[in-house]
Amino acid sequence: MGKGGKSDGEEQNMAAWLVAINTLKIQPFNLPALGPYDVRVRMKAVGICGSDVHYLKTLRCADFVVKEPMVIGHECAGVIEEVGSDVKDLVPGDRVALEPGISCWRCTQCKEGRYNLCPEMKFFATPPVHGSLANQVVHPADLCFKLPDNVSLEEGAMCEPLSVGVHACRRADIGPETNVLVMGAGPIGLVTMLAARAFGAPRIVIVDVEDSRLSVAKELGADEIIKVSTNIKDVEAEVELIQKAMGGGVDVSFDCAGFNKTMTTALSATRAGGKVCLVGMGHHEMTVPLTPAAAREVDVVGICRYKNTWPLCLEFLRSGKIDVKPLITHRYGFSQKEVEEAFETSARGGNAIKVMFNL
Amino acid sequence: MGKGGKSDGEEQNMAAWLVAINTLKIQPFNLPALGPYDVRVRMKAVGICGSDVHYLKTLRCADFVVKEPMVIGHECAGVIEEVGSDVKDLVPGDRVALEPGISCWRCTQCKEGRYNLCPEMKFFATPPVHGSLANQVVHPADLCFKLPDNVSLEEGAMCEPLSVGVHACRRADIGPETNVLVMGAGPIGLVTMLAARAFGAPRIVIVDVEDSRLSVAKELGADEIIKVSTNIKDVEAEVELIQKAMGGGVDVSFDCAGFNKTMTTALSATRAGGKVCLVGMGHHEMTVPLTPAAAREVDVVGICRYKNTWPLCLEFLRSGKIDVKPLITHRYGFSQKEVEEAFETSARGGNAIKVMFNL
Amino acid sequence: MGKGGKSDGEEQNMAAWLVAINTLKIQPFNLPALGPYDVRVRMKAVGICGSDVHYLKTLRCADFVVKEPMVIGHECAGVIEEVGSDVKDLVPGDRVALEPGISCWRCTQCKEGRYNLCPEMKFFATPPVHGSLANQVVHPADLCFKLPDNVSLEEGAMCEPLSVGVHACRRADIGPETNVLVMGAGPIGLVTMLAARAFGAPRIVIVDVEDSRLSVAKELGADEIIKVSTNIKDVEAEVELIQKAMGGGVDVSFDCAGFNKTMTTALSATRAGGKVCLVGMGHHEMTVPLTPAAAREVDVVGICRYKNTWPLCLEFLRSGKIDVKPLITHRYGFSQKEVEEAFETSARGGNAIKVMFNL
Amino acid sequence: MGKGGKSDGEEQNMAAWLVAINTLKIQPFNLPALGPYDVRVRMKAVGICGSDVHYLKTLRCADFVVKEPMVIGHECAGVIEEVGSDVKDLVPGDRVALEPGISCWRCTQCKEGRYNLCPEMKFFATPPVHGSLANQVVHPADLCFKLPDNVSLEEGAMCEPLSVGVHACRRADIGPETNVLVMGAGPIGLVTMLAARAFGAPRIVIVDVEDSRLSVAKELGADEIIKVSTNIKDVEAEVELIQKAMGGGVDVSFDCAGFNKTMTTALSATRAGGKVCLVGMGHHEMTVPLTPAAAREVDVVGICRYKNTWPLCLEFLRSGKIDVKPLITHRYGFSQKEVEEAFETSARGGNAIKVMFNL
Repeated sequence: MGKGGKSDGEEQNMAAWLVAINTLKIQPFNLPALGPYDVRVRMKAVGICGSDVHYLKTLRCADFVVKEPMVIGHECAGVIEEVGSDVKDLVPGDRVALEPGISCWRCTQCKEGRYNLCPEMKFFATPPVHGSLANQVVHPADLCFKLPDNVSLEEGAMCEPLSVGVHACRRADIGPETNVLVMGAGPIGLVTMLAARAFGAPRIVIVDVEDSRLSVAKELGADEIIKVSTNIKDVEAEVELIQKAMGGGVDVSFDCAGFNKTMTTALSATRAGGKVCLVGMGHHEMTVPLTPAAAREVDVVGICRYKNTWPLCLEFLRSGKIDVKPLITHRYGFSQKEVEEAFETSARGGNAIKVMFNL
Repeated sequence: MGKGGKSDGEEQNMAAWLVAINTLKIQPFNLPALGPYDVRVRMKAVGICGSDVHYLKTLRCADFVVKEPMVIGHECAGVIEEVGSDVKDLVPGDRVALEPGISCWRCTQCKEGRYNLCPEMKFFATPPVHGSLANQVVHPADLCFKLPDNVSLEEGAMCEPLSVGVHACRRADIGPETNVLVMGAGPIGLVTMLAARAFGAPRIVIVDVEDSRLSVAKELGADEIIKVSTNIKDVEAEVELIQKAMGGGVDVSFDCAGFNKTMTTALSATRAGGKVCLVGMGHHEMTVPLTPAAAREVDVVGICRYKNTWPLCLEFLRSGKIDVKPLITHRYGFSQKEVEEAFETSARGGNAIKVMFNL
Repeated sequence: MGKGGKSDGEEQNMAAWLVAINTLKIQPFNLPALGPYDVRVRMKAVGICGSDVHYLKTLRCADFVVKEPMVIGHECAGVIEEVGSDVKDLVPGDRVALEPGISCWRCTQCKEGRYNLCPEMKFFATPPVHGSLANQVVHPADLCFKLPDNVSLEEGAMCEPLSVGVHACRRADIGPETNVLVMGAGPIGLVTMLAARAFGAPRIVIVDVEDSRLSVAKELGADEIIKVSTNIKDVEAEVELIQKAMGGGVDVSFDCAGFNKTMTTALSATRAGGKVCLVGMGHHEMTVPLTPAAAREVDVVGICRYKNTWPLCLEFLRSGKIDVKPLITHRYGFSQKEVEEAFETSARGGNAIKVMFNL
Repeated sequence: MGKGGKSDGEEQNMAAWLVAINTLKIQPFNLPALGPYDVRVRMKAVGICGSDVHYLKTLRCADFVVKEPMVIGHECAGVIEEVGSDVKDLVPGDRVALEPGISCWRCTQCKEGRYNLCPEMKFFATPPVHGSLANQVVHPADLCFKLPDNVSLEEGAMCEPLSVGVHACRRADIGPETNVLVMGAGPIGLVTMLAARAFGAPRIVIVDVEDSRLSVAKELGADEIIKVSTNIKDVEAEVELIQKAMGGGVDVSFDCAGFNKTMTTALSATRAGGKVCLVGMGHHEMTVPLTPAAAREVDVVGICRYKNTWPLCLEFLRSGKIDVKPLITHRYGFSQKEVEEAFETSARGGNAIKVMFNL
């Protein structure tokens, strides 16, 4: 019997199950048997991601559809309870952040070092795989990264969203000579900005349609903030403002919104030979001036989650190059009522950036 | 006085001037003084490019506008007549192919090895710079590449269009493991296909809307040809056909047409982690499913002319890895009447691939 | 009980065991249980590698020491007999070439796509791991690559040595603009030369101390062959000969011998900004002019076996870009006597390039 | 007449000429005519480099020999006095740092973005080219980089040695995940350490044979310092100390000394798949364990001066990511006596790191 099944004096493992649209229920969750390279982790901090909210509201995200009840949650950290027979680097009591995706290691993508593109990826809370908003989970030891002493479990859980920013910076090859434009100051725009700074970007301009978000971005270290409209006709004027604020060419633009207007701005503002990294997914089909950008060798790169980011995220947190604590705006316990409230808070947006469960 | 001014017993240099819409006139063309690193070249073969025709029909191309009469032509090869005082590697009588663009070598792009992006580029027949459809031109020696003995002057002139394909292949990193899709079997699609093969692409599928072009592509070495429609609704079915014809994933797609439909097909057909290289410029603004492509890390790269391609083109021609001779479908002399006919032939399209002047 | 144990009517699996210095014995070899992602393969072709001979003569190779009897052999191809429960792409009867190393897929090297550097690599016939000169072996399905119809089992076995050349070419970034020097025309020099050609190298010069080897190299496609001495004093003159034979700069040198003299020649002959790839392992400590090479940005890269090479090798063999058949100079059956003779032939060198067992 | 020739009321340009071994003389130095893209700069700060001292002591450095009297000095900054007719970005009064090398921009290396490898490089104080320890020099405008307001002229002159460290870091691809070992805490070791930190290196261990140098390194930000011997037998123990101090693998080692022992240590200490960058030039021929390093894919890269480093150096200085002021330990005026003393101080070493002239 897997752990989590109730037996004499043994705790029953509970998890937050997505059972229908807008319906989450805390219910028992049987753990699988612990394999030789697995660990059992007691969850301590789990954050809510936009995709979690999307599943809750629609039972789907991109091409994935929730057909059976599924445990939700994938931004998480906890404490090791038990280790498999062949696990060498972890012991019970270790505090760890969890990378949520298990790839196959048999396909070409995995073997060539792009395991994030593995077609057989099993990822927390991407149907039909269960997530991690639970008392305990079983996970491969090599996807559990020990936290430095000065990094909290909540910060550990933040490695997941931060990984998106880190992977985007790697794909766009950010370094100490890269002047960066960030389109959108939501959670992903902010972690991308923080990551770009940690990769050495000397100058970062961030734009958004809301003053409140821009204020947060400024406090978190943006060199310049620019309020923009949602009107496509303003692109030309706004590109001018951006380039003036940058005081030179935009080497890399991150579009963390993903709308026609933001992408048009990004493509237009970026210097010849620069890059636009498309991170946000506002529109599926896009109407953008791709041809003139291509003719200036402005390349468009995208991201599929991340790979090999946890060690670097933890180093950024340990060294203080990145501080994610200001992003955690709301905290909840793990009761039925609080789970519902927490998701409402996250869905409402407003001043919520990251909503975190403390289990 | 520059060469070309008529004086006793001296030949007058004549060139084909674009003087108004649809009006080319052969008129005298005074050459500039020969600098220490320049050579004077007697033109022997000059090809007509689509952009030449575009200038003739509209006096413009992209953002460039012809405001003063301008000598046309930029695909060319000839014989050295005179060398400047500091030229060491060339002597009169040498047969050379000419790279048409002179960059500044003082800007960041030039210094970082991307001289094709130089904002001060002076390029044959891009206004206000005169072109090379002339008896003689003066050009920097380092942009004149000596032809191997077994490469003709016409093949030398073909280095220019071939360079577009070579640069596209470099940007897309084509090698012996890259299965290639080419969208469009016009002149640029064909040189891209030839270049991809020379870079080692093991399998190349090419699509077009015309059977006649596909036949040419097949003769020139395509592994599979597929006739497609111009109806955007057919994309899904055609992607399936393409992937089946490829017998595996498409690693790199070259869109040599540049329309919404071709780019949608390219983005959809390419495997996760692959690349789409946008070469054609059918549409300025594009409506394409960029977001799902980005989410699979299908990168979009463009090209701005080419750089450092002549030596490789000449090596491909010398070794026989590429044969451009079948692309030269029409030949004309350099009289007023023939110039007019040649441009008409090129503009008409039909079975004309490359129209060449023999001077 | 694993396959290979003798039972009623069941064949006993036999293998060539290295039991002591200069002593190989054909003895029973019990196979491990077939895992869900494993296949059982009947060996049909196994080649002898220099390292096999080295183990036979000394019971060691580099830092590895044979302490217990070990089955030898690692260059191999065979036919699938049985597949594990989760194997999807292979069925009994499929002809496959085997990649010999099983990496852990949990360490940083594996995850970053450099699985050849995995510190926990389990590799055929590298102690204490058994090899593949046996009637049957059990191996992970994802390391068994189906042979194209026109590729023989012997050619399949040749993928292993060819992989060394392919990996060297990748590390040195060989392409259609790379003029290549190969130091040493032994088996590894030859496969490196063949691979360099298949990667597009336009001009290849190969040097050796023996005329007979150079003749083979010439027949296999070298553009120029140069006989050299073993006297370090001849380096300068030989570098001059090499550069003259190349007719231009040496972009990449492969030192497939690995002696002070060959490496000195390689470092000196290579142009500023080029690469020297050290493949051979003649000397452990080397006395070479590394400083002046570094000052010209001639980089030195090495190789550790290979990774992700089988698909490309099979494509090279399928397409005929590489023909390895001329390298197979001797063939033996799998009897005690023939095994001994085969190893003697391989150890003797002479005109033997690759000695192959047909099982 | 070039500037510097004495005429009515006009100042005579004076420079420090290397006229014989150990003999520097301040003598008139006629400036060349100002070309359209040139500027005339009044020197304000000139540092002494090890190569300057080497020329003074031996009249040679590497393959370069001083055959005629030559103006010395190449680490410099000054104020624009006059600009050529086509200079757009600079005006008299601008404070600038000078990149000392003028490349040809016609050769393949220049065109491919590796102008530091240009075979026709004309470099300050590399015979037969005059240097910049003079009241004024004429130099191409594109090699004169405007100083940010908060960067002093002395710091501007320090861009030259700092460029060596920056170029080394680029060649070794230093970033926020690269743990760095620096062999040697002399001036070049120190700028390399500072550059590595600015590129994001999270952990830097530096070793030297002198405590005083290590103290400086520690003050300038080394995470760990290790005193080592000059005895080759200590390598194994010292490698162990280094790896322990690093607390993990060494990703990149910079050998800023360039002796058999330092390079042996670097090659042995670096993890599989890491890099060793050879910067120092202690030995010409080296006896080192290159083969086992190559077998672990530890690559060896060298540096030839630098390219495109001034903008980044100035950004590092402007932002405070690098502070070079502590490196300037001695200052002298530009009189015959002080020039002699300054070179003596630099030659003596001791606690002198950088000796600077204020003109």
